Amino acid sequence: MATSPVKIRTTVRPTAGRRERHRTQTRERLYQAALQLFAERGFLKTTVEDITEAADVGKGTFFNYFQTKEHILAEFGGGYVSAMEHALEEARATEGPIIDVIRELAITSIRKINEHEALLRAIYAAHASCESVRLELKQRVVACRRLLADIIKLGQARGEIRLDIPAVELARQTQSIFMGVSMGWAICPSSTLRKVLEETWDLLLPGLRTSASRGHNGHRRVSK
Amino acid sequence: MATSPVKIRTTVRPTAGRRERHRTQTRERLYQAALQLFAERGFLKTTVEDITEAADVGKGTFFNYFQTKEHILAEFGGGYVSAMEHALEEARATEGPIIDVIRELAITSIRKINEHEALLRAIYAAHASCESVRLELKQRVVACRRLLADIIKLGQARGEIRLDIPAVELARQTQSIFMGVSMGWAICPSSTLRKVLEETWDLLLPGLRTSASRGHNGHRRVSK
Repeated sequence: MATSPVKIRTTVRPTAGRRERHRTQTRERLYQAALQLFAERGFLKTTVEDITEAADVGKGTFFNYFQTKEHILAEFGGGYVSAMEHALEEARATEGPIIDVIRELAITSIRKINEHEALLRAIYAAHASCESVRLELKQRVVACRRLLADIIKLGQARGEIRLDIPAVELARQTQSIFMGVSMGWAICPSSTLRKVLEETWDLLLPGLRTSASRGHNGHRRVSK
Repeated sequence: MATSPVKIRTTVRPTAGRRERHRTQTRERLYQAALQLFAERGFLKTTVEDITEAADVGKGTFFNYFQTKEHILAEFGGGYVSAMEHALEEARATEGPIIDVIRELAITSIRKINEHEALLRAIYAAHASCESVRLELKQRVVACRRLLADIIKLGQARGEIRLDIPAVELARQTQSIFMGVSMGWAICPSSTLRKVLEETWDLLLPGLRTSASRGHNGHRRVSK
């Protein structure tokens, strides 16, 4: 089955000397090769040897960079946490609507991580069939939820988001919806992920707002 | 890993003679044994022989009732279509709010099918890793979407549901959210499925309503 190449943006820091650069590149090569293989043949069916072969390095090399195959998934998952942290910084700094920061987070940042359908399916299948992988997910979901709750609190303080439900509950609910919709999309896509997320956001927005501000669905973009 | 017994309600018709009854019972035994095994060890790792052994029938017997293992999944999925058909009938007959019929569908009927966490995970893992299983899912999703769109149309005609988005689009969006939230719950439950679905519904409701009717979130129960 042909799968379009997985290419996940990572942050390669512009640091240090040649040796350090070489290490960073090898790590990145292993990481990308692993994700590519997960997407093609599934997480469970991919071995460490498959990964090192695809990355063109010796088998033992893998363990200089990652303890296990699961650590690759954890690193992938770390992208969600970074996106949330970034959004929280933005929410603290912006004078524009907080609701736009959340929209941007759901529709742009998280979507970029999720848009490779086959990879998302492989990751989902791994979570569905593997208890240890699920445990890692749970920790990450909780970390993301706390960050999102902090963003929502800012929106509540500014009178944009309803106050009758605690921020941490709204965060859990919003997270469950966007996580679920992305998973569902990977398994049974009815449209592009962007469109599905945008529609979900638009449908959800009146429920997130204070009753007074429900009239205007507005603010489609983050004003920068 | 201990898994609580899967017991999916099925409709055993009160028909005919002893032979027919025996057939119905054997079929049901195979079906329940299969679901139980899927939940315990996963769909892919369950063989037809495992199923016939657990159901205590000869191996060949399986094929008198189901063509393949995948047909068990299809039958399970058929439950969603039946729930939708039932809800459509109810929507046509009721003089109460259509929105309550949809709520009941999401929170009671679909939940009953989904509430076995391990089985749901096994089924979604199969969908995530198997193209042929996904194709079957797609057909079912489309069938359910059409039925839901018909229910939503009734709600639009009665002025309960917003008119600015076509019923078929609202059906797709609502379906994607509830399917997604159930999938996410099976992998990473933050609460009971009932609670998660109820919260999702409450958050979504203002976005489904006409702007005029958004004030009252009311009607928590189907009035029968």
